[in-house]
Amino acid sequence: MHILILGAAGMVGRKLTERLLRDGRLGKDTITKLTLQDVVAPAKPDTTIPVETVTCDFAVPGAVEPLVASKPDTIFHLAAIVSGEAEADFDKGYRINLDGTRYLLEAIRAISGGYKPRVVFTSSVAVFGAPFHEKIDDEFFLTPLTSYGTQKAIGELLLADYSRRGFLDGIGIRLPTICVRPGKPNKAASGFFSNILREPLSGHEAVLPVSDDVRHWHASPRSAVGFLLHAGTMDLQTLGWRRSLSMPGLSATTGEQIAALARVAGPKVAARVRREPDPTIISIVAGWPRDFSDERARKVGFTTFEKTFDDIIRIHIDDELGGNFVN
Amino acid sequence: MHILILGAAGMVGRKLTERLLRDGRLGKDTITKLTLQDVVAPAKPDTTIPVETVTCDFAVPGAVEPLVASKPDTIFHLAAIVSGEAEADFDKGYRINLDGTRYLLEAIRAISGGYKPRVVFTSSVAVFGAPFHEKIDDEFFLTPLTSYGTQKAIGELLLADYSRRGFLDGIGIRLPTICVRPGKPNKAASGFFSNILREPLSGHEAVLPVSDDVRHWHASPRSAVGFLLHAGTMDLQTLGWRRSLSMPGLSATTGEQIAALARVAGPKVAARVRREPDPTIISIVAGWPRDFSDERARKVGFTTFEKTFDDIIRIHIDDELGGNFVN
Repeated sequence: MHILILGAAGMVGRKLTERLLRDGRLGKDTITKLTLQDVVAPAKPDTTIPVETVTCDFAVPGAVEPLVASKPDTIFHLAAIVSGEAEADFDKGYRINLDGTRYLLEAIRAISGGYKPRVVFTSSVAVFGAPFHEKIDDEFFLTPLTSYGTQKAIGELLLADYSRRGFLDGIGIRLPTICVRPGKPNKAASGFFSNILREPLSGHEAVLPVSDDVRHWHASPRSAVGFLLHAGTMDLQTLGWRRSLSMPGLSATTGEQIAALARVAGPKVAARVRREPDPTIISIVAGWPRDFSDERARKVGFTTFEKTFDDIIRIHIDDELGGNFVN
Repeated sequence: MHILILGAAGMVGRKLTERLLRDGRLGKDTITKLTLQDVVAPAKPDTTIPVETVTCDFAVPGAVEPLVASKPDTIFHLAAIVSGEAEADFDKGYRINLDGTRYLLEAIRAISGGYKPRVVFTSSVAVFGAPFHEKIDDEFFLTPLTSYGTQKAIGELLLADYSRRGFLDGIGIRLPTICVRPGKPNKAASGFFSNILREPLSGHEAVLPVSDDVRHWHASPRSAVGFLLHAGTMDLQTLGWRRSLSMPGLSATTGEQIAALARVAGPKVAARVRREPDPTIISIVAGWPRDFSDERARKVGFTTFEKTFDDIIRIHIDDELGGNFVN
């Protein structure tokens, strides 16, 4: 099985790559080739599996055709401009998140001879915008309040239509906010949800720019990779033509996050969170989803590794910090 | 006030043009210029109001810029490939219905200096696909089962984002199936809903290709024009950023349509409908909406001229047949 990952150098892409190479297989199929694409050079992993790395902007006309010409069986499409950047740069957001996705789908359609790859598209809960119910159900309409969310919602629609027309076999998974996100903050406005856990665990102060009662929807990086693997292997007939769905997660307030940090790592660590309200971030976050009904996703086999927010913190300590943190 | 109509030669476009020229105004504003565009030459109306007709394919790159360069105050975007054709010709449907719409929005955005026209986009109930509730409410998600519906749903998302970003002031109205549609059948699979009324009233036989209990959502051409005028003048603040909504209509089965025909025009006319089931049309129509909750649209001032299906038939006889029909 040949797997192509678009956006392989990003956080989720790197974790997916690691997991695929560790398993050596996707579902029942042995991986015979892995192609890693990103606009910054993806790291060349140390493995016996043939890995090709491609550094290019996939949203430039003609860039994606060579990537699909060798007919990868499964394509993980993780490439995107994040929410903050797509809002700041209107043209860039539409070019990468909309045009790029369409070029990919069109390049697949252009290959004749019954080529019909599995395409796993990472969408986002940003397709939903306030006002909504406290728990967003699986039939709630998509009313994004960001250009990023608009572009993701359009991607979902295209994926469903190209699947229905038989050009590919697509599934869109709306990832919760990934928490704890390792590494440096990116331009996503949701960064603080991870900062308030990651920074204190490594001995640094972190700023909470919103109040303690801001509720949000989270999943660990380990669960996110699990969602991708399941999306890459599950029987899509069960979804009908409604090919996008909200992934399972945990709903927690920032206060509950910090309380979990105190339980897992002690009050000294939790005390490294400093409250410093930022009106801009407060107003952005006010339009974000707080909680979901994830019945549909769980029914078709999507699961999380974490049962509580304490687990989310423990997974970070295990997977990123070698089991230790700075007390 | 300068008004631009894209798709002015189509049935709704012609009726909108007639009404605007008859009124001489849109809301409180006197019409000083009317620009009529279509891919087939729009008829040059006999009027003292300055009318410019433009024959062009608006979805060719560069075609729409000259149309918006003179900064029309209100743009009615009615140009589209209908459902049957968009399904038969994938490329053409995406080119006209998606790319064309995007070119229009981009051309408007490219004009600087605070230009922010009202853009009225005609969407469709085809943005909804089965399974759905018996009555589709205003928060139900868009799951189109045709490429046409997909393209309209994407148009709604783009319109909302361009409005939110301040580039234009857009509203998308999802028209019910227009009934009774005058003239010759077009490539829309919904044609029979009008054929079974229009043809018998002019002395011809008509074929009903589905059963008598197929329920669907209808509005008269007169009401459709009323929706457009209201969309062109109403205060859009009341909609927030949810800029598209389902228009009011009447839910009726084909059997109820024929019964109304018998009441209004007599049993002899109604007997001109011949039952001849067509499995292809039956299967297409099975995925179509049957009924709507139109509270949101009525709350913000959208109204219909018809109270019953009998009214829909009377409006056709009055507006299209000069008050007479063939008994």
